[in-house]
Amino acid sequence: MKEIKDKLRAFAEERDWDKFHTPKNLVMALSGEVGELTEIFQWLTPDESKIENLSSKQFSNIKEEIADIYLYLIRLADKLDIDLEQSALHKIKINSEKYPVELSRGNAVKYNKR
Amino acid sequence: MKEIKDKLRAFAEERDWDKFHTPKNLVMALSGEVGELTEIFQWLTPDESKIENLSSKQFSNIKEEIADIYLYLIRLADKLDIDLEQSALHKIKINSEKYPVELSRGNAVKYNKR
Amino acid sequence: MKEIKDKLRAFAEERDWDKFHTPKNLVMALSGEVGELTEIFQWLTPDESKIENLSSKQFSNIKEEIADIYLYLIRLADKLDIDLEQSALHKIKINSEKYPVELSRGNAVKYNKR
Amino acid sequence: MKEIKDKLRAFAEERDWDKFHTPKNLVMALSGEVGELTEIFQWLTPDESKIENLSSKQFSNIKEEIADIYLYLIRLADKLDIDLEQSALHKIKINSEKYPVELSRGNAVKYNKR
Repeated sequence: MKEIKDKLRAFAEERDWDKFHTPKNLVMALSGEVGELTEIFQWLTPDESKIENLSSKQFSNIKEEIADIYLYLIRLADKLDIDLEQSALHKIKINSEKYPVELSRGNAVKYNKR
Repeated sequence: MKEIKDKLRAFAEERDWDKFHTPKNLVMALSGEVGELTEIFQWLTPDESKIENLSSKQFSNIKEEIADIYLYLIRLADKLDIDLEQSALHKIKINSEKYPVELSRGNAVKYNKR
Repeated sequence: MKEIKDKLRAFAEERDWDKFHTPKNLVMALSGEVGELTEIFQWLTPDESKIENLSSKQFSNIKEEIADIYLYLIRLADKLDIDLEQSALHKIKINSEKYPVELSRGNAVKYNKR
Repeated sequence: MKEIKDKLRAFAEERDWDKFHTPKNLVMALSGEVGELTEIFQWLTPDESKIENLSSKQFSNIKEEIADIYLYLIRLADKLDIDLEQSALHKIKINSEKYPVELSRGNAVKYNKR
């Protein structure tokens, strides 16, 4: 991830695009990419969305969108000086306490906050 | 990332939540988290969105949402057997060819696909 | 819709919130609300998402989110001086030509742009 | 809106696309369109996003995306038997009580839920 972060920094600096990369703008860019990923999945059934049922064209489109999302996420985290790995591990811990195994097992209602 | 991936697998299995984690559903979950991040930034000016201008409350909310996004992204990539790092490095290469430095410098119009 | 548009204008002016309502910010607000709607549906199967299978709690949450989305859409269109009804009717016409009945019938592949 | 709702029904029926239009799928389609709108605005400053500063190309793209969003919103509301106008008027009333004028005037902090 360090390598990607550095490459993205150089990429933006070389093109003088750093000025566009405010956190607000990067959140929108991230959101736009998630929109593109959503479009690929919108008419598929949950079953059709599984890896074994995707066409190679669908799969390659998905892979590209997921890469774009990851790139903007790293760039955003870099601009906010957030350590993705560490934050994620911390969040898993919080979630473990929030959803204890005994109370959550197979329980769709508990799972779904609504 | 390997550690996070494994913990997320165990987390879902222990709670029998794996059945909810189809790629279609995970894309929606990812999108929902990006929506929460968007809400934090929606009324901020680009300048107010910078790290030095965020309150500690805003910053801690942002960090939590970004962690959630990262967790769902890793889970989704795992379900689709996609290597995030490798795909991202590949995408940077494609982008370098798509936006050559000489033609792209400080050029907002080129930058923006529209 | 005219009544809603006028009420939203008065609402923002009375609170001196008009300054927050740039199109960029309103697009983010719209996106945030769609994120909240997405969260309600993310773990439901397509079948569970149908009106006859929603709980009254789910239904009332959905109704509220859809109202929020509609409010921000009207506000955004107002700020951009766009006539929603007219634009929508125009778009239906374009879509009719883009997807001729004979070629599109029950054709999921054609339907899906990807 | 009644006219649009009826045209969308006929449009889907003629093409046998009704089967794709579950609420879950329509929420994703709505979200995808909002993603496209977001992409148009992502690198613009709030000021550049105002109607008087948009190019005619940008404006026509925005108009088309807003029409798409409105179409999916009507279709979704139709499938859930929700009256958009009535729900929106009801929501404005709730918001008026939630944000009393005296307490909310020009108050960005109160405005922003976070």
